[in-house]
Amino acid sequence: MTEIRRCAVVGAGVIGGGWAARLVLNGLDVAVFDPHPDSERRVRVMLENASRIFSKLALAARPEPGSLRFAASIADAVRDADFVQESAPEREELKRALLAEIDAHAPNDALVCSSTSGLLPSRLQSDMRHPDRFLVGHPFNPVYVLPLVELCGGGRTAPEAIARAQEFYRWIGMRPLVVRKENDGFIADRLLEALWREALWLVKEDFATVEEVDDAIRFGAGLRWAMFGTFLIYRLAGGEDGMRHFMAQFGPALKLPWTKLTDVPELTDELIDKIASQSDQQAGGVGLRTWEIRRDDGLLAIMQALKTLGIGAGRVLGDYERSLDARAAHGRSIAGTPDPSEPLRLHKGVVQPDWVDYNNHMTESCYLQAFSDATDAVLHCIGVDEGYLAGGNSYFTVETHIVHRQQAMALEPFYVTTQVLNADDKRLHLFHRLHNGHDNTVLATGEQMLLHVDTRAGRVCAAGDEMVERVRALAAAQAALPRPDQAGRSVGRR
Amino acid sequence: MTEIRRCAVVGAGVIGGGWAARLVLNGLDVAVFDPHPDSERRVRVMLENASRIFSKLALAARPEPGSLRFAASIADAVRDADFVQESAPEREELKRALLAEIDAHAPNDALVCSSTSGLLPSRLQSDMRHPDRFLVGHPFNPVYVLPLVELCGGGRTAPEAIARAQEFYRWIGMRPLVVRKENDGFIADRLLEALWREALWLVKEDFATVEEVDDAIRFGAGLRWAMFGTFLIYRLAGGEDGMRHFMAQFGPALKLPWTKLTDVPELTDELIDKIASQSDQQAGGVGLRTWEIRRDDGLLAIMQALKTLGIGAGRVLGDYERSLDARAAHGRSIAGTPDPSEPLRLHKGVVQPDWVDYNNHMTESCYLQAFSDATDAVLHCIGVDEGYLAGGNSYFTVETHIVHRQQAMALEPFYVTTQVLNADDKRLHLFHRLHNGHDNTVLATGEQMLLHVDTRAGRVCAAGDEMVERVRALAAAQAALPRPDQAGRSVGRR
Repeated sequence: MTEIRRCAVVGAGVIGGGWAARLVLNGLDVAVFDPHPDSERRVRVMLENASRIFSKLALAARPEPGSLRFAASIADAVRDADFVQESAPEREELKRALLAEIDAHAPNDALVCSSTSGLLPSRLQSDMRHPDRFLVGHPFNPVYVLPLVELCGGGRTAPEAIARAQEFYRWIGMRPLVVRKENDGFIADRLLEALWREALWLVKEDFATVEEVDDAIRFGAGLRWAMFGTFLIYRLAGGEDGMRHFMAQFGPALKLPWTKLTDVPELTDELIDKIASQSDQQAGGVGLRTWEIRRDDGLLAIMQALKTLGIGAGRVLGDYERSLDARAAHGRSIAGTPDPSEPLRLHKGVVQPDWVDYNNHMTESCYLQAFSDATDAVLHCIGVDEGYLAGGNSYFTVETHIVHRQQAMALEPFYVTTQVLNADDKRLHLFHRLHNGHDNTVLATGEQMLLHVDTRAGRVCAAGDEMVERVRALAAAQAALPRPDQAGRSVGRR
Repeated sequence: MTEIRRCAVVGAGVIGGGWAARLVLNGLDVAVFDPHPDSERRVRVMLENASRIFSKLALAARPEPGSLRFAASIADAVRDADFVQESAPEREELKRALLAEIDAHAPNDALVCSSTSGLLPSRLQSDMRHPDRFLVGHPFNPVYVLPLVELCGGGRTAPEAIARAQEFYRWIGMRPLVVRKENDGFIADRLLEALWREALWLVKEDFATVEEVDDAIRFGAGLRWAMFGTFLIYRLAGGEDGMRHFMAQFGPALKLPWTKLTDVPELTDELIDKIASQSDQQAGGVGLRTWEIRRDDGLLAIMQALKTLGIGAGRVLGDYERSLDARAAHGRSIAGTPDPSEPLRLHKGVVQPDWVDYNNHMTESCYLQAFSDATDAVLHCIGVDEGYLAGGNSYFTVETHIVHRQQAMALEPFYVTTQVLNADDKRLHLFHRLHNGHDNTVLATGEQMLLHVDTRAGRVCAAGDEMVERVRALAAAQAALPRPDQAGRSVGRR
């Protein structure tokens, strides 16, 4: 795969523009048609956003981007396309007309997909001469990031077209979900629309503002939805008694006016059996405890990822951690300041989810990142702060030696201890140990030589007397510590 | 804060047990009452799960856990409590009776909260003698992980009780959301119930299995819900024209039968104005482009976090990355091989804007990133590819020595040349030079020792004959190259 090389995007608003970006970044040539006068500029901005995220999205080798061309008509856009994605506004007559035009001008074997969120493919394809190669491929915004694409064929769609689309969408990094029975809203939008309509009621009747509605989602159930959806989560909420228990316990609540959706299916034995047995199948014979651990690890990973960006539940977690630290520091300040004759313990953190490779091992450069952060903490401690840098002085690392001993895994806490091996007017010689935060084992060591520099002249120079005194005092306080085995070692020699 | 030291948990199923765990792990003493014979064991299992996750949750100093005691009656559990959390099944009469009993035995100034998902606090408090200290504190499962707690007072709740609860819940790491107007289902459960009831219809009418419903959420909208909720996401979907445009565009879809929730509010100018202005307020004057970047970074961070655990969208991302790598490797093998008697030139790039510090100097760890990428390229070249890794073998870096010579700046092109210093059945000794792409000067050197490992056993082992022959041949081809000055050097010695 793939025999698809040339794509056409018809309708290039937020959705169509997102498609264009995803396709181009997968190395495909794309022709865009949209009558909006500002469309080209908007698509180019979106491609820029997408390139930015794509360069981080896949750590893997990325293909050379394909070409992007703006066509003057539908005929021009689709003329030599292998694949056409229509993303016009959600009006049936409009889409039918556009699809008929696409159909008339595209090569006969081109695949034609519509981005509609819920219109019926059987109706959309009704004016096409080749309706067999048409289906719905419904994406989610931002199209260049989110993997889901719902596939739904109409009455005249060929099964081969669905299979081809599935393979193609997967090839460009997406997750196709084939809707087996055509229906208004497919699967995802039925859920989204129910939630959205309820949200409109909440705001209309002043039970909540738009921000409160968003908060009610993103600090709670939204975190679960991101990883598990809804049924699996409720299965676990049933505890050791599982899905049947959950249904029995929350069945009566279906009669309560907890939503404007009051037309509810009756919980017959048949429906309960169906849900419970499908749920058993979904759980795949894996036990409750294992699923709970997966769920908890996943939720935590999401929160920690959001913490690095200061968003939503991640920000709550960060604030909580800081408050715990403050409470503990309150305890510590009674206990006194750290002992300078011991290795300094100034830097700690958690292995970030994007620091690991696909084996869940922390990548090499992140070990150096941890050591480098620890060096910064030491520098801060001796007064190399913003003011010092602004004065045109700094310390630069000129040499580093790292010895790896054990792997660090994602989400593991770590801390660094630092021993000052030596210091004079120009040099600062540090030795770091990276420890596992759970059991204190040493994961890696990092020896670094720093030189004091005049940053304006761009050359090494002696530090001022005050700084020299401070670094010498620190080195003297640690002089009695045993010299680490790995210090002074060169690569490959013991 | 907090004056609360002793807590009681009445009803200890999945929700009550989760409360007990969160409270104990925040250093509070907890008494539990639940008539279920197996309750104590179940709570202890939950505490174990929670301790596990809590040890990773906050890197910060964690308090000593509080005590956990199982009481024989409600009276015994709440006798000396400062705070009581009721989590009985969702039956109004049952909860009313329990709350009356709690009220009768708890100290007068104890705060009393109910975990109900949607019953009205005004009704729940009606049999209490001190209804002023009662309110709803509705959490989300797992209670010891998710931050959201909805607070809702009844007609006789004192404002001080809500303020106290808010402070207390925040103190134990949660995110209180105060519901301003009492209503069935509060805010969150109205949204959850709408989605849940729709999901039941989808399964009942065979449009989807429970697993397909979950997939329709977790690969798409669920990822957005985790960070932003729904209104902010739709504001961004409106593109440069914002919330008004979105409402205008999707307004007509509200009339479509895309959900069983067909009782929809009319989109009057008044409602549109209200939503648009609340949305402006939520966006806080921050522009579209900035919000898009936050959204994309957040979604990517979530997917990367899930990738480390192989869950949902994270697994899709991991598979995609591997397939990109496989395609790239395929391309490389076609390109032909370089002259093996010269240093290998397999990796090049441009210093990315986020690789530099505020002085526009490439950060230390990015030098190692460049060397590490070059090492990967060498490994790829000798056949350490996906298949090789899948077979349980790999090379791991055990030691690195970096010497910095000049600064690299943002957007400068660079390339790496690699000399193979030595190789045997287990070892591969490489020496990299990072060059400025404009003038070829050497910016830094990186010497690395790699060992061949059995990744399943997690220990060093000899490579297979074929691999050993290949690395030896490469080392032999380069044996005539002069040995680099920096090779074999240790930190601080010339």
